Amino acid sequence: MISVTIWNEFQHEKIHQKVATIYPTGIHQALAEGIRCPDFSIRTATLDEPEHGLTEEVLRDTDVLIWWGHMAHKKVDDAIVDRVHARVLQGMGLIVLHSGHNSKIFKKLMGTTCALKWREANEKERLWVVDPTHPIAEGIGAFIELPEEEMYGEHFDIPTPDETVFVSWFQGGEIFRSGCTFRRGKGKIFYFRPGHETHPTYHNKDVLRVIANGVKWVAQPGGSKPVYGKSEPLEPLNK
Amino acid sequence: MISVTIWNEFQHEKIHQKVATIYPTGIHQALAEGIRCPDFSIRTATLDEPEHGLTEEVLRDTDVLIWWGHMAHKKVDDAIVDRVHARVLQGMGLIVLHSGHNSKIFKKLMGTTCALKWREANEKERLWVVDPTHPIAEGIGAFIELPEEEMYGEHFDIPTPDETVFVSWFQGGEIFRSGCTFRRGKGKIFYFRPGHETHPTYHNKDVLRVIANGVKWVAQPGGSKPVYGKSEPLEPLNK
Amino acid sequence: MISVTIWNEFQHEKIHQKVATIYPTGIHQALAEGIRCPDFSIRTATLDEPEHGLTEEVLRDTDVLIWWGHMAHKKVDDAIVDRVHARVLQGMGLIVLHSGHNSKIFKKLMGTTCALKWREANEKERLWVVDPTHPIAEGIGAFIELPEEEMYGEHFDIPTPDETVFVSWFQGGEIFRSGCTFRRGKGKIFYFRPGHETHPTYHNKDVLRVIANGVKWVAQPGGSKPVYGKSEPLEPLNK
Amino acid sequence: MISVTIWNEFQHEKIHQKVATIYPTGIHQALAEGIRCPDFSIRTATLDEPEHGLTEEVLRDTDVLIWWGHMAHKKVDDAIVDRVHARVLQGMGLIVLHSGHNSKIFKKLMGTTCALKWREANEKERLWVVDPTHPIAEGIGAFIELPEEEMYGEHFDIPTPDETVFVSWFQGGEIFRSGCTFRRGKGKIFYFRPGHETHPTYHNKDVLRVIANGVKWVAQPGGSKPVYGKSEPLEPLNK
Repeated sequence: MISVTIWNEFQHEKIHQKVATIYPTGIHQALAEGIRCPDFSIRTATLDEPEHGLTEEVLRDTDVLIWWGHMAHKKVDDAIVDRVHARVLQGMGLIVLHSGHNSKIFKKLMGTTCALKWREANEKERLWVVDPTHPIAEGIGAFIELPEEEMYGEHFDIPTPDETVFVSWFQGGEIFRSGCTFRRGKGKIFYFRPGHETHPTYHNKDVLRVIANGVKWVAQPGGSKPVYGKSEPLEPLNK
Repeated sequence: MISVTIWNEFQHEKIHQKVATIYPTGIHQALAEGIRCPDFSIRTATLDEPEHGLTEEVLRDTDVLIWWGHMAHKKVDDAIVDRVHARVLQGMGLIVLHSGHNSKIFKKLMGTTCALKWREANEKERLWVVDPTHPIAEGIGAFIELPEEEMYGEHFDIPTPDETVFVSWFQGGEIFRSGCTFRRGKGKIFYFRPGHETHPTYHNKDVLRVIANGVKWVAQPGGSKPVYGKSEPLEPLNK
Repeated sequence: MISVTIWNEFQHEKIHQKVATIYPTGIHQALAEGIRCPDFSIRTATLDEPEHGLTEEVLRDTDVLIWWGHMAHKKVDDAIVDRVHARVLQGMGLIVLHSGHNSKIFKKLMGTTCALKWREANEKERLWVVDPTHPIAEGIGAFIELPEEEMYGEHFDIPTPDETVFVSWFQGGEIFRSGCTFRRGKGKIFYFRPGHETHPTYHNKDVLRVIANGVKWVAQPGGSKPVYGKSEPLEPLNK
Repeated sequence: MISVTIWNEFQHEKIHQKVATIYPTGIHQALAEGIRCPDFSIRTATLDEPEHGLTEEVLRDTDVLIWWGHMAHKKVDDAIVDRVHARVLQGMGLIVLHSGHNSKIFKKLMGTTCALKWREANEKERLWVVDPTHPIAEGIGAFIELPEEEMYGEHFDIPTPDETVFVSWFQGGEIFRSGCTFRRGKGKIFYFRPGHETHPTYHNKDVLRVIANGVKWVAQPGGSKPVYGKSEPLEPLNK
């Protein structure tokens, strides 16, 4: 059983009619419904809750944290960001969605600006699989097509990903590395691009499948127990 | 259920008393015993069987092939090598052990000489985990220690691995990238260094654990369905 | 001074009027003219010459080999392929252009099918830089635009590149990893996608700049001197 | 001409007699002497100078910054760290030496703890080249041997390096990825392990050669000009 916490800033849904129509109970609830399965135990958390819903206790009990944020990145408390950061390095899986590229937690883990090109023009996106061996692409055809999305274009200012699973084509002429994995400490991270709030992307079956695959992949029993700090020789030091 | 075929050239055990003492029924049987579990359906195959035991039918029914060879690399039929190569590219997992670095199938998949430094001096090897997030290292501590092994040293003439999971320390002064993964076509490959025939390495619990982890990892449901060849435009080509 | 040998099968130019019009003296001569500079000493070689113009002596004196082939891959002698392969592993740089993805030498170095999707529809290609730190992209803006090219689409069946420098957008809806580097033995390899014979791509200033950058990058004084084979201990083996 | 700034916290040399004997004018001066050549214009900077010697003007005029720090990491001003971080992302090369693994600037760029195992026991280190194609290893044999050094052992908690050039063997039984490269923004980074203050490591010819090679590599004319932010479509969006 994988313990999943879905975090959503949950702001657009309260103030933008169009977003509320698509996600009446919030993006977090749509995601929870969309990936629900017997292998996952799912809770949600949002910005306006005490400690943003991410208490020490909640994080300790979380195997995989999913992060969606956009207009309120700056309102996320630095102490909570540090707490999430520490948990990722200890082994909690993290899935960062869409505009989460600009969140404090993602930038802190990457060490770069995470800047990119963008355009809101309701254009077509096609996410091509470039690593067909990857479990995150399990069950997907050669690509996923989304009729209308926000455009994100290169250059995407991230460290070279450990694995690039998807690259997006956009109608307006750009491409984007839209499914990327990273390892940080004992934690595995998956960045997945789609999901602008004014499009019903998190109702798309393939998108939900990829997110569910991602949960399983970042939660995968991380290997060994590393040792740090001062240590005695394992061999005699003959001199 | 993962269908595993363990291939062993099975020559040393027939002619070297010391090897026969350590592996009385052959390295393939020791491996089969050592990794046996309810998730694996295991068969073995050896050089002297017709088609080296690797018929079209056997390979079609194999999810993961484990390869041990040393003194008889040249006796492996090129047609069988081509058959195994094709199956790996179609998605069969492959684990290449120890002196298998010099096998026809490994060199064909790598495109390099796969040369290395070596020495048979019964010296200590310590395999350090350098990627503690990797499922292949699941259940291992900071390192695995083997009291006596053959030495393999850098430079190991392979393509840069997709992932380096273990690096070995040797008593005589060398290091070696001893646990490496590669993706080729839809197939996943794990090279794992230990296992010289004159040492009881395949009776070591940690070594067997890593091989069993490797079976699960290379067998992992490979992702998507790629498309190749001539194709029509997906978008109108306005000119 | 970098010694460059440009190899072209030089067949289309002799039999297809359109190609002959674009490249009257052959693709190899257009490339030689296009990248000429005081740092390069350039010779050419073609399929119909004895030993395809790639004698032991020529290869010994070549720092960087550029390869263009398409309709005559099968006519390239296996012994010459083996000779080129050996030289790459010894440290000769190799640039493989466009349809060279399907050449014997590239497939032998990669170990995969190197298959891809394709379409000849004279559509627009835009090559986006995804690694702006790479010397191969020196002097290029955010992208290179080619008004008409053949389409190559994913999945491109290659090993994960060591570095992905360019990803192409195509008008018809596909993307492609169009500038990739690989290390094999002591040799550095750059695959660069553009250059279908019916388009004047090798007269494009940016394309030529990338190829010249590539020559410098694959020729870069390769580092250290590896040692292989049986070897004595560097440390005492106390037992 | 490459403009190099060598930064040293310059504390041990003032208070530890042994260190002062080895580096009478400071580690920064030893490095400056050791890598001096007509291609480099070298200045130094130290912790006790105003703004730690790293003013806006100095950084603007620096192509490559070399960083040595150990006992005073916490005394480095956060504002200066942010300034250096921004310059790396804009394209300044960075070489982090030895205990600099624990500096604020390295941890900020990596996003991880950068923790490791360590031991001060004056033991032998042997740095093996695992990527003989890399310009950073130019001129080095199969390995570099240092008779006495501090031990650093795995696990080293860094993101997977873009390239691993050296792996160290230690007499006491450990290994360590001791020469690693990373790309962050438009900047190239080289971490190089050796250089404990109580050993004359920066008088070693091979160590100095690697640092000089590193300067050339991280300074290498970075490629293209990326574009970020809101942007108009490059193609018509037919709907």
